[in-house]
Amino acid sequence: MYQVRTDLALEAKEKFEEDHVEVKGVRLEKEKAAGDIEITKVVIETENGAKTMGKPRGIYVTLEAPNMIEEDEDYHREISVQLSKVVRELLGEKKEKDSILVVGLGNREVTPDALGPHVVDNMMITRHIIREFGSYAFGKDKTKKISGIVPGVMAQTGMESEEIIRGVVEQTHPDYVIVVDALAARSTKRLNRTIQITDTGINPGSGVGNRRHAINRESMGVPVIAIGVPTVVDAATIVTDTMSDLIAAMAESSHLSGISDSLKTLNEMEKYELIRELLSPHLNAFFVTPKDIDEAVKRLGYTISEGLNMTFLENHA
Amino acid sequence: MYQVRTDLALEAKEKFEEDHVEVKGVRLEKEKAAGDIEITKVVIETENGAKTMGKPRGIYVTLEAPNMIEEDEDYHREISVQLSKVVRELLGEKKEKDSILVVGLGNREVTPDALGPHVVDNMMITRHIIREFGSYAFGKDKTKKISGIVPGVMAQTGMESEEIIRGVVEQTHPDYVIVVDALAARSTKRLNRTIQITDTGINPGSGVGNRRHAINRESMGVPVIAIGVPTVVDAATIVTDTMSDLIAAMAESSHLSGISDSLKTLNEMEKYELIRELLSPHLNAFFVTPKDIDEAVKRLGYTISEGLNMTFLENHA
Amino acid sequence: MYQVRTDLALEAKEKFEEDHVEVKGVRLEKEKAAGDIEITKVVIETENGAKTMGKPRGIYVTLEAPNMIEEDEDYHREISVQLSKVVRELLGEKKEKDSILVVGLGNREVTPDALGPHVVDNMMITRHIIREFGSYAFGKDKTKKISGIVPGVMAQTGMESEEIIRGVVEQTHPDYVIVVDALAARSTKRLNRTIQITDTGINPGSGVGNRRHAINRESMGVPVIAIGVPTVVDAATIVTDTMSDLIAAMAESSHLSGISDSLKTLNEMEKYELIRELLSPHLNAFFVTPKDIDEAVKRLGYTISEGLNMTFLENHA
Amino acid sequence: MYQVRTDLALEAKEKFEEDHVEVKGVRLEKEKAAGDIEITKVVIETENGAKTMGKPRGIYVTLEAPNMIEEDEDYHREISVQLSKVVRELLGEKKEKDSILVVGLGNREVTPDALGPHVVDNMMITRHIIREFGSYAFGKDKTKKISGIVPGVMAQTGMESEEIIRGVVEQTHPDYVIVVDALAARSTKRLNRTIQITDTGINPGSGVGNRRHAINRESMGVPVIAIGVPTVVDAATIVTDTMSDLIAAMAESSHLSGISDSLKTLNEMEKYELIRELLSPHLNAFFVTPKDIDEAVKRLGYTISEGLNMTFLENHA
Repeated sequence: MYQVRTDLALEAKEKFEEDHVEVKGVRLEKEKAAGDIEITKVVIETENGAKTMGKPRGIYVTLEAPNMIEEDEDYHREISVQLSKVVRELLGEKKEKDSILVVGLGNREVTPDALGPHVVDNMMITRHIIREFGSYAFGKDKTKKISGIVPGVMAQTGMESEEIIRGVVEQTHPDYVIVVDALAARSTKRLNRTIQITDTGINPGSGVGNRRHAINRESMGVPVIAIGVPTVVDAATIVTDTMSDLIAAMAESSHLSGISDSLKTLNEMEKYELIRELLSPHLNAFFVTPKDIDEAVKRLGYTISEGLNMTFLENHA
Repeated sequence: MYQVRTDLALEAKEKFEEDHVEVKGVRLEKEKAAGDIEITKVVIETENGAKTMGKPRGIYVTLEAPNMIEEDEDYHREISVQLSKVVRELLGEKKEKDSILVVGLGNREVTPDALGPHVVDNMMITRHIIREFGSYAFGKDKTKKISGIVPGVMAQTGMESEEIIRGVVEQTHPDYVIVVDALAARSTKRLNRTIQITDTGINPGSGVGNRRHAINRESMGVPVIAIGVPTVVDAATIVTDTMSDLIAAMAESSHLSGISDSLKTLNEMEKYELIRELLSPHLNAFFVTPKDIDEAVKRLGYTISEGLNMTFLENHA
Repeated sequence: MYQVRTDLALEAKEKFEEDHVEVKGVRLEKEKAAGDIEITKVVIETENGAKTMGKPRGIYVTLEAPNMIEEDEDYHREISVQLSKVVRELLGEKKEKDSILVVGLGNREVTPDALGPHVVDNMMITRHIIREFGSYAFGKDKTKKISGIVPGVMAQTGMESEEIIRGVVEQTHPDYVIVVDALAARSTKRLNRTIQITDTGINPGSGVGNRRHAINRESMGVPVIAIGVPTVVDAATIVTDTMSDLIAAMAESSHLSGISDSLKTLNEMEKYELIRELLSPHLNAFFVTPKDIDEAVKRLGYTISEGLNMTFLENHA
Repeated sequence: MYQVRTDLALEAKEKFEEDHVEVKGVRLEKEKAAGDIEITKVVIETENGAKTMGKPRGIYVTLEAPNMIEEDEDYHREISVQLSKVVRELLGEKKEKDSILVVGLGNREVTPDALGPHVVDNMMITRHIIREFGSYAFGKDKTKKISGIVPGVMAQTGMESEEIIRGVVEQTHPDYVIVVDALAARSTKRLNRTIQITDTGINPGSGVGNRRHAINRESMGVPVIAIGVPTVVDAATIVTDTMSDLIAAMAESSHLSGISDSLKTLNEMEKYELIRELLSPHLNAFFVTPKDIDEAVKRLGYTISEGLNMTFLENHA
């Protein structure tokens, strides 16, 4: 069975349903939030489930909002509020914990990959102020120490993001790490309309860039929450998927009745091989993204940073 | 017959050859330049040729260089030299003419669309200095008055680029306009490896953005040279093309011998219809671009601006 | 009498008061707005007043707010509301008028000069949408057609901003032009805490850059409102002023009683000559700005664009 | 004796000479390099010298070039060559050492503070390629493993640059660290015309920002070379210096003969106190920089990165 290329646990799950494959060890819960924001929780409960899904065990919450890309401040505020709730839940109740490192992964110079840097740019950074003046500097008891970093991508630094972040974590000892990153989806319909929040961190092969080393609780020594928005589809994925639809359509077509039967005899694997032969391998170096990606990334970066500011700063709640 | 979606005259011509369609009124000349730079000239000579090609009458010169995206200063200098030669040739010998407006079209905030702005950023701008101190300010008699503008795209300005540029041309009276823009190609293999220089300017429906009004000699009142590099492929194009290949492969396949005959009976148009039904219309809002597009656009912007600096400033020649 | 170097009419007026010089033909009105925002109106009523002030006849409204640089969304919203009121008042009641061009003057690459570009970046641009779909595209009858442009500075374009804007105005026929620019103040205390709104447009010698040609009703053919925030002090100004204070202090000093009398015999002009001799003329090429100018310009750009969005878009009011 | 505020060892030394103060334990060597580039070496040899100079023991080499800000590629190449020589000399001959971390300190969003980030943007980053393919990936035996990072400033990260860099050094084990930073000079005449290279790293209180923790061999565990260009003068410094000149001028002035004698009785300290009373303490939050700082920083960033590329990559030498 070939692997579906998506960073969204929800899409991976859906693909199996589409193919009528039962996945054991994976639980799915739907919940309707305020307005038309849809919240879905995928829980990968067993190692078997993880293997099938191609993603580590843990919780993956998806916020979907059809108008996430519209200009509407109140609507965006509602998304920030829901995001904040999910983050709090994943962090659990640990009141004594109070320092957070927010990491903006991705390449600031490539528009759909600049989401993480945008979020860090908009965060209220407080660690240095609280260390110097105490948390009453903000007139509140519970303001957290927030630090932030934009490590850059390997082509710019020559280093794995994971090396840089682990170094920073070991020097500054945050209680948690929040990693924000642009993701790859399988369907263009999910681009810029979905936020995934997971307690599994960032794992190999994700995203636009080449970030192969995991950034998770194991590698960092503290809990890592990853927040991502799909902003691209791999070029190979979009082509594969549409061709797969083409084969299905031809198999159904009365116009092509002669073909129908022969095609039905092809199994999934044979169809995939047929497609793969036609795909130039260099397509892996390309991605698909919407033309208005600059506005989408700017707006989503703001929405996510507001959600995080709400979570960690009393006066934003 | 359906229209091939490409801004490169060379690709449009090739498509017809591929389909064994003879195009009248279009001439093609190949020339090998220094090293491995290949120069091709497509001349659309008649209105009929223009109609078939979907592009206005005029000269389209293409520089192709397989290593255009490598880090090699000497190689890039050679491309700049060849570009300069072509620009000089298209401008013709008019020594008394001496003021040039360089326009950087496209959206600075969307990486593959930022080529034009990058070129203007790197141009030697001289008009204001020569107007104040004379051309001997540069110690040369023949330094041209160069001005530059980055008008932005319609989503940012609410105006057509053509309105802005015509306004600027009417106020500042340049003898020529050079317009630099990112283009859409049909094949990913041409991305960031090809420079097209044409004396027809920029015409409706080109590029990533929505720039519908022509920027050419007719609308501007002075000669307009357009320089473009394909940095994206339309998502619909890449999917259509690969599906077209799929149908061809299935028709040939011995493995699918049963299908073969039925498929052969489909003509081009029927194949296209089959594909179009499957393509979500929203794919038009997406483009395909390489992951290292930031480096490519930066490097190409520099190479083109150097070519133009050479052309207009004695001391760079 | 030497000229005070400031773009703020209020500071020019204050200087004369300080020097006990009566200025005829200039009226000053103070008004306390919501919270601690102070609104002052300087009206230059006569040509004589204009000559003395070194600024054209017209209305100059100043909003001053001590916490304009703090992070406080509600506070900023209040400033936006007051700004919107002043702009409406200066534009007058002309309901049939409905298209506005917003110009962001200044150099995007020099932090304190990037205010204008930031404002245009944050404007709701509507002209192209209303032209295509009508104003009901926004669900409101009264949404204005807003266009925007960032012309760049002369070192980047080789052209006067005034040439570019006049060209755009002649092509697109806005009913009004709003020009936003970074200004030079005399006192560092006013930097990033003051917004000046004037119906006289932008006039020679203002700001950080070299923009010598007026952008006003006369040159544009339509009313021009200029909105500016002082973000720099000229280096020569700050040095002159402090030295002037030094001379005054020495004249008062009991410690330097011997000097006192001789210094008192120096008149303003002599003091100024003494200072000027010491000032290297190259100081004119330098400006003074605060270290946190990046945050100030970002925040003020947002506050001003919100004020303008409120003014022209029903749903923001 | 009050402290001169400058990051340039050369200026600190000059100030003492000006004041006819002999500094023990500090050696100064002048050398004329190619063309009009002047090279000066200040060696602080003893702890006493360090205390007097307010800078740690070590070597400070200054390259001064009057035309460093002109557009002249050959001239800039010569500066890069000289810079490369100095860096090699300070690193010493250690052929087995081969990995270098280049750090771009400073705030990318504040133009005169963006020098370090610009340099890292232009570096050839090789570490990840050599680790994957070996150094023959570049067709040379001696290509070094270069990594780079732009840590941001404390207001953006909440962390000391030193914490971030130490973390990265401990994870990636470079043999050397090169730190590039914008500096503060005492005189505007040195801005953008001087490069200081030192083996003492970066030490408290330097530059525009607030970077208080040393980045040197002691804190990093490996040799640290710092490369800096003064791009700003502290506002307090420029005012103090000119006022000091004013007092001197008045003391000399025949026109003010009455004052002369009283002023001569003031000692340095009293003059300084007089000045300090007049200086608003908030002037510390301001800096002075030239209007064309965007072009200067871009050009100098390129010149320095070329010098470093030459140093570490065979094929650039």
